[in-house]
Amino acid sequence: MSRYLNIAMGQLGPVQRSDSRRQVVARLCDMMREAHALGAQLIVYPELALTTFFPRWFLADDADIDSFFEREMPGPETRPLFELAHALGVGFYLGYAELAQEQGRWMRYNTAILVDQHAKIVGRYRKVHLPGHAEHEPWRRFQHLEKRYFTPGSRFDVYQAFGGIVGMALCNDRRWAETYRVMGLQGVELVMIGYNTPVHNAPAPQHDDLSLFHNQLSMQAGAYQNGTWVVGVAKAGLEEGVDSIGGSCIIAPSGEVRACCITKDDEVVVARCDLDFCAIYKQTTFNFDRHRRPEAYDMIVRRKGVALAADGSPWHEPEEA
Amino acid sequence: MSRYLNIAMGQLGPVQRSDSRRQVVARLCDMMREAHALGAQLIVYPELALTTFFPRWFLADDADIDSFFEREMPGPETRPLFELAHALGVGFYLGYAELAQEQGRWMRYNTAILVDQHAKIVGRYRKVHLPGHAEHEPWRRFQHLEKRYFTPGSRFDVYQAFGGIVGMALCNDRRWAETYRVMGLQGVELVMIGYNTPVHNAPAPQHDDLSLFHNQLSMQAGAYQNGTWVVGVAKAGLEEGVDSIGGSCIIAPSGEVRACCITKDDEVVVARCDLDFCAIYKQTTFNFDRHRRPEAYDMIVRRKGVALAADGSPWHEPEEA
Repeated sequence: MSRYLNIAMGQLGPVQRSDSRRQVVARLCDMMREAHALGAQLIVYPELALTTFFPRWFLADDADIDSFFEREMPGPETRPLFELAHALGVGFYLGYAELAQEQGRWMRYNTAILVDQHAKIVGRYRKVHLPGHAEHEPWRRFQHLEKRYFTPGSRFDVYQAFGGIVGMALCNDRRWAETYRVMGLQGVELVMIGYNTPVHNAPAPQHDDLSLFHNQLSMQAGAYQNGTWVVGVAKAGLEEGVDSIGGSCIIAPSGEVRACCITKDDEVVVARCDLDFCAIYKQTTFNFDRHRRPEAYDMIVRRKGVALAADGSPWHEPEEA
Repeated sequence: MSRYLNIAMGQLGPVQRSDSRRQVVARLCDMMREAHALGAQLIVYPELALTTFFPRWFLADDADIDSFFEREMPGPETRPLFELAHALGVGFYLGYAELAQEQGRWMRYNTAILVDQHAKIVGRYRKVHLPGHAEHEPWRRFQHLEKRYFTPGSRFDVYQAFGGIVGMALCNDRRWAETYRVMGLQGVELVMIGYNTPVHNAPAPQHDDLSLFHNQLSMQAGAYQNGTWVVGVAKAGLEEGVDSIGGSCIIAPSGEVRACCITKDDEVVVARCDLDFCAIYKQTTFNFDRHRRPEAYDMIVRRKGVALAADGSPWHEPEEA
C-alpha cells in the first residue's frame, strides 16, 4: 500500500522591510504555481513569511510592532494566495505573525496555519519554543526578541489532512526532541516546520559555521525517532543586513534527506513522499507501545531546567516508595 | 577554563560462546593497557562485554541462561580487570549481565557499571529500553530475546566522577531522546553507551544498510540537544554467525564526531575531551531553564503508545480547563 503526497518546499529568499505584503504574496503565488506545475498537492512556506524577520529590532512603539502582524487570515493582502490555492487545488502551510483577540485583549503569536486543497484553514499552530530574549540587549549586532513580541503556544496538535496525520512546528521547535515526540504520540506522519535562522548566533558565535549541520541533524533525528516525514523550509539569505541559513529539506522517516534546496533565494523543490513509508518505523524500532518507558521519563515534565545540588553535584529524584 | 578527560573507546570484536570469561577479560585488560599508554583516564567497553550476545538464542533452561550472568562484581574472573584499573589508575564503564538478589529473589538485569580510577564502583545502571521480544519467534533467522531474559531498570541517574557529571545508558536506549534528556536535566556532561547491534533487524530488514547511520544520528542528536559528550562503544563483527555493526564513536556536545573506530575487531581509540565544552550549549541554545516548555510535554509521560480515535484520526488531549 502507498499513500503518495507530493510535497513542495516554497523556500523564500530575503524579505526587506520595504517589501509590501502584496509583493511577498505575489512571490508565494509564483511558487505555488510552480509547485502545481510540478505536481505538488501541498506547499510548505517559511515562518513569518509575510514580512521581514522583525524580531531582529527592538521596537518600542506598539503600532510599529503591530504593523508586522495580521489581524485576519485571510485578509485583503493574503486573499489572493487562498484564491490561487482553491483554483489550483494546492494546500499550504504558512507562517505569519498573528494578532488575535481573546477575551477583549489583543494577543501576539508566532503562528502557522495549514490550509487544505479547498483553501479551508484546517489547523492553526502557535509556536511553543520561542527562542531569544525579552529585553533589549544592545551588545548584540542584532536582536532576537521573540520572547518579547510573542506569547507562546502550549500545544502540538495534529490533523487528519492530505491523506495522513500531519502536524506543525516553527523554527526553534525543531531543536527540541519533545516537539516531535508529542506529535509522534498522536501518530504524526508529516511534520511541517518553517524557520528563520540567522547564521550568526550572538551568544555562541563560535558555532555559526555549524548552523546548517544542526538544522539538519535535529530534523533528521526527529524524523527517524518518530517514523515521520519532516519538511523544514527557510526564509533564507541577506535580510536587512542579517544573513540567514537556507538548507530547506524534506527528511524521510528513515532520517535520510529526500530533497533539499540549494540556493538562498525563492526556490521550489517537490518530492513525492509515501506516507505509508512511516509504518515500518512505527511498527518496529519505534513501536512506542512496545518499547517506550514513560515511568522513566517523569523528570521531563517535572523539571524545566537543570537541577544541581548546592555543591554542584547532581541532584537525583528520590526513588519511588 | 578547561576540564580535559582523556576517554578511550575499548571496542570489542566478536566473543564466541566457547570463549571463556578469562579470555575476554584478558582482551579487556590488553585494551586497558593500550588506553593507558595513550594517556586515557577512562575506558568505555561495550554492553554485555563478558560473553557472546546470548539473547540471540531461545534458551529454555534456567541454568543455561544463568551461565551468561555475573552473580558478583568483581568476581573471580573479572577481578584482574579491577586490579589492573587500580594499578594503572584507569577507570572504566563495563556492560554485563547481572544476577541480583532482591528480597530473596534472583533478578536478571542488563547492566553497566562505572568504576573509578581507584577501582571502586561508583555507579550502576540497569537498561531501561529493552528491545526485541519476549517469546520465541522461530521465523527469525536469530532471536532478540532481551525482553525475555531481563527485567528493565527505570532510572537514568548521573554521577559526579572523572571531574564531571557522567551518566550511563545501554544500546537501544540511545535511539530514545528521553534517555539523553533525563540525564541532561541532571546536568550530564558525558553519556557512556555500550551496544550490541546486529546489522540484520528481522522485523525491518530493508533498513539493514542504514544501521550505522541510525546509530550515529541518534547519538549526535542526543549530544547536541543536551550539550553533552556521548561515547558509544560496540561489540562488533561476526559472532556465532550473526554480524554486528561497529561504528563506535565519541560525539562532541556540538554533535560532531570527535573520533571513531574503523574496524570490527578489538580496537582502542582515545580522544581528549574538554568537559567544559558542554557549557556553551547548556548556557545558550539549550539553556533548559530559559527555553524548555514542560507544560507542552505532558503527553510524553501520560501516554506510552500512539493514541488514535476509532476512525483512525488523531486523538487529542483535551485542553486544560
